[in-house]
Amino acid sequence: MKREQLIGQIHRKQSFLCVGLDTDISKIPASLLDTEDPVFEFNRQIIDATKDLCVSYKINTAFYESRGLSGWKSLIKTWQYLPSDCFSIADAKRGDIGNTSEMYAKAFFSPESSGMSFDSVTVAPYMGADSVKPFLGFEDKWAIVLALTSNEGSKDFQFLGRENEDMLFETVLQKAAGWGNAGNMMFVVGATRGEAFLTIRKHVPDHFLLVPGVGAQGGSLQDVCKYGLNQDCGLLVNSSRAVIYASSGKDFADAARTEAQKIQKEMAEWL
Amino acid sequence: MKREQLIGQIHRKQSFLCVGLDTDISKIPASLLDTEDPVFEFNRQIIDATKDLCVSYKINTAFYESRGLSGWKSLIKTWQYLPSDCFSIADAKRGDIGNTSEMYAKAFFSPESSGMSFDSVTVAPYMGADSVKPFLGFEDKWAIVLALTSNEGSKDFQFLGRENEDMLFETVLQKAAGWGNAGNMMFVVGATRGEAFLTIRKHVPDHFLLVPGVGAQGGSLQDVCKYGLNQDCGLLVNSSRAVIYASSGKDFADAARTEAQKIQKEMAEWL
Repeated sequence: MKREQLIGQIHRKQSFLCVGLDTDISKIPASLLDTEDPVFEFNRQIIDATKDLCVSYKINTAFYESRGLSGWKSLIKTWQYLPSDCFSIADAKRGDIGNTSEMYAKAFFSPESSGMSFDSVTVAPYMGADSVKPFLGFEDKWAIVLALTSNEGSKDFQFLGRENEDMLFETVLQKAAGWGNAGNMMFVVGATRGEAFLTIRKHVPDHFLLVPGVGAQGGSLQDVCKYGLNQDCGLLVNSSRAVIYASSGKDFADAARTEAQKIQKEMAEWL
Repeated sequence: MKREQLIGQIHRKQSFLCVGLDTDISKIPASLLDTEDPVFEFNRQIIDATKDLCVSYKINTAFYESRGLSGWKSLIKTWQYLPSDCFSIADAKRGDIGNTSEMYAKAFFSPESSGMSFDSVTVAPYMGADSVKPFLGFEDKWAIVLALTSNEGSKDFQFLGRENEDMLFETVLQKAAGWGNAGNMMFVVGATRGEAFLTIRKHVPDHFLLVPGVGAQGGSLQDVCKYGLNQDCGLLVNSSRAVIYASSGKDFADAARTEAQKIQKEMAEWL
């Protein structure tokens, strides 16, 4: 998907919500367990209930890989079912030496090779330029590079640096921004660090940011918007558990819709 | 596999060679392409030809994921075929927030969940403690944390730091070593940085190091041994392309054996 198309969807739907399909078979309603592929059936109903309210779906690959071959099948079926007007994210946190990152890029971007073609993949920056660049060579595809994550462990390394000098996440933003551009690269910035968006926007004023951590992880949508929005919106705010597990009963899809609607309304006010 | 078992194998086989199964279907002999699963067939013959000369196999998951469902099938079949006396590594470079890393750990450590149970997984450290710790909760399983990698891009972030102060890779070693111990954690240190092993050993004298970069990437086995060996050996030196693609003809397995033998002999002299 091109940047202009994404921005168009955001204005059309008055939403920059990304729904995270972190689908855990142990958490889905018992009523689905008799279906042929319960994980896909859950995702299908969640997608149907939310697709007019969000502009993106993020599939957390770990939840599928953990179930081996049958999980990988659910992953492919879910990718096939994603609406074409939604920006698709393989949240896979990949990254390795050049020849290996090329293979990961094929896994998520090359349908003739793997059967899937997401719009984007999340990428870990630790191994540097040649681990990220192979994801940038595909037309209308994106690398979403980890900058400042939403978890407690983000403090271990991402804030390293001296007072009055750049911290590691800032160096990552600066260097990585030079490997791609605002049309093929985004950054992950956790919602749990609202005030940090000021610093982030100094380094990457134009890039889209993928923002996890609203909802179950405690981040504030208001802070994210206040400090993170740019002239093109520039945000995809993800909610996973708060939306998809809004109810554990048969009404899970309706409950997910209600939750997504609540977030979409708040987003519309900011646009 | 327990640390003592691994050390026992190293002394028995007089080898600390790890053979990397970075199996690319476009590089395997044409004679195999008619078999039901060419990638598995290639791996099977490589394993048969090298299993008495190496103590470990490292499966680079990217090469399997790039082929979608059929790649994932080859991955599982290859894992099933690995000799039980060899230390198995899922070279997957995973790492995410806690609940997601738990799922990745299940994908590679929990046979009832995914159909596979490797001895170890490579893990990216950028997201900190809670992204690594979920891999440490499985008996006789290991997390192999990226410290200093063999690629050009390692210079982008891993060496950040001021003169006379720790560089990022050193901080990673120090912090991560505290999350586990020398019986459930190893570190990736690229062979292309021989002299850096002196610094590495200051921080982690007892840990095993997984060392890629010998062979195609240009690292020197001699430097790695000179600076990296400890009282328990403490090294697993990986060779992928130089061994498995030693010949592109029908004699690929014999050629792989010859190459592995050459490395094993050099290793025996160091032990």
